[in-house]
Amino acid sequence: MNTQKEITIYDIAEALDLSPATVSRGLKDHPAIKKDTRKKILDKAKELGYQQNLFASNLRRSRSNTIGVIVPRLNSYFMSAVISGMEKVANAAGYNLIISQSTESKEKELANIKTLYNSRVDGLLVSLAYDSEDINHFDLFLNKGIPLIFFDRVFEHPRCTSIVIDNYKAGYEITSHLISQGCKRIAHITGSVIRNVYADRLKGYRHALVDNSIPYDESFVFPCNLSEQAGADVTQRLLEMPELPDGVFAANDTTAVSCIRTLKQAGIKIPEQIAVAGFNNDPLSKVIEPNLTTMNYPGQEMGELAAATLIRKLDNKEGTSLNTIVLHHNMIVRESSLRKKINL
Amino acid sequence: MNTQKEITIYDIAEALDLSPATVSRGLKDHPAIKKDTRKKILDKAKELGYQQNLFASNLRRSRSNTIGVIVPRLNSYFMSAVISGMEKVANAAGYNLIISQSTESKEKELANIKTLYNSRVDGLLVSLAYDSEDINHFDLFLNKGIPLIFFDRVFEHPRCTSIVIDNYKAGYEITSHLISQGCKRIAHITGSVIRNVYADRLKGYRHALVDNSIPYDESFVFPCNLSEQAGADVTQRLLEMPELPDGVFAANDTTAVSCIRTLKQAGIKIPEQIAVAGFNNDPLSKVIEPNLTTMNYPGQEMGELAAATLIRKLDNKEGTSLNTIVLHHNMIVRESSLRKKINL
Repeated sequence: MNTQKEITIYDIAEALDLSPATVSRGLKDHPAIKKDTRKKILDKAKELGYQQNLFASNLRRSRSNTIGVIVPRLNSYFMSAVISGMEKVANAAGYNLIISQSTESKEKELANIKTLYNSRVDGLLVSLAYDSEDINHFDLFLNKGIPLIFFDRVFEHPRCTSIVIDNYKAGYEITSHLISQGCKRIAHITGSVIRNVYADRLKGYRHALVDNSIPYDESFVFPCNLSEQAGADVTQRLLEMPELPDGVFAANDTTAVSCIRTLKQAGIKIPEQIAVAGFNNDPLSKVIEPNLTTMNYPGQEMGELAAATLIRKLDNKEGTSLNTIVLHHNMIVRESSLRKKINL
Repeated sequence: MNTQKEITIYDIAEALDLSPATVSRGLKDHPAIKKDTRKKILDKAKELGYQQNLFASNLRRSRSNTIGVIVPRLNSYFMSAVISGMEKVANAAGYNLIISQSTESKEKELANIKTLYNSRVDGLLVSLAYDSEDINHFDLFLNKGIPLIFFDRVFEHPRCTSIVIDNYKAGYEITSHLISQGCKRIAHITGSVIRNVYADRLKGYRHALVDNSIPYDESFVFPCNLSEQAGADVTQRLLEMPELPDGVFAANDTTAVSCIRTLKQAGIKIPEQIAVAGFNNDPLSKVIEPNLTTMNYPGQEMGELAAATLIRKLDNKEGTSLNTIVLHHNMIVRESSLRKKINL
């Protein structure tokens, strides 16, 4: 085969005995084309060397200068900080953001993907919903070579870059800190363990216990939706345990603050009777009394880096080998867990 | 003139001695058509009775089932609640939301308008930026009869519906409450008074003072960007006044909480020395000690109603006479302002 000859849709059509119109539609993911046929067309296109970046460059010619963002919910300080970082970098580069919420549902995430695709976004920045166990629903973007960056709640994929913190290490550190303060019966409030962020913090918690000769007990782990109400409900269950825990590590500050308020109402002394630590360094953590020990999560930087990485991909300045970017986190020890004098 | 005859672009072209193509482009707001010419075309179209809903129905045929939202910033509890309400109603009706931030800049607001227009949204829900003194930049939507609903930060326009609370009354009530608690030297922390929400609260504050024979003094009014830092900075200035104020009414809870924290650090007793009230009923208001007196702002309902009104317009179920919808607010009195026993 003459490698100089540019492969066209006519070559694919001939090879598959399909009409060029069908091939064209298949490559464009037109709804009239069956999934099987589309797969056949894409496979043949690949086999013949129909250039992925041919369609990519077609798209690029009609660049909309718009970046799509899909987040679980817009209701946290962390997510505001992420989006503020994205907005800053995108604006400086002449891009506009459009944002949609999956409200933690894979089905809604798919609807958002279609809407943003129809809005002809140049690329996507995504933090996954609770129940997205795979990313097949992103094929609309992946098959066209439109760049896709995951942040915070990520999924490993050879063609996507992920931007995260080391949640395992962070969970390990905060649990070790509680142990260093004399805690031996530490409860953990967590989210959906399908998602990397919560699964990794839980693993860090478990390993810190085991490494300090404290047995891991599943009845001390409380999965919930991490809302204010959920924090109060879980704390009520802690208060009803035959022997009170002496430490709580919550996977976000919302539930940690709610936990402290519920414990205070029950007359429990913090940190003397129960030491409490959260995660995210929300503004709330400095307002609650006692002030909350927490993990500083660099939301603004995560957003800036996600947008910058996407724009570099759009400008062909980034190779395809970039897989994962890990940002620094740092523990902030405050009164809610401080039972002994330690060097901060 | 025969009223049965449907007016076409050819009639407008003939009347103005322009080509039909120019008229068509003018009606579609094509960039190649000068503003003057476009105005002439629109005026003539109106004069001849070229039906506004003709172009509206053209658009409706290609409905995208997407609603565009433009907000100043996504960084407040209030805005999360609004968007959660919109999302709920939009989803139930089969619409998807795409959201963009003006970051308080009119220029960015215009960029968002263009992006959402190109995304072919069926309608817009908007809370205006600090510095948008008019809404001429929305002509792209208004000229095509695409429905536009303002919420919270609104602008009076014959073809738009606004959804608000009575900010004047709310500002009056909260100031009157502080006066009822014995405050006579009340400072007011406010935002940009170009925007209705802050201008109206300020007017309520001023009238409550005057109605209680307390002179209005402009040096007690502190405009700022209503951030946490701004709240601390303003409070520093209060502390440097020759005689300390005995009350503070802040136009949001973020600055009110920041004010309380700064006052506490300076050893000031709240509410005994200074009574403090905020606005919005953010979760923070129940966490700060003493708990913050504030105004409950029905964000979720506002979002639900904004989306429902837009969807009714899209379904032609809503007339054009609907101008303003005012939601209930209610004051929540807590310890931060409670110097006397009152009936709550």
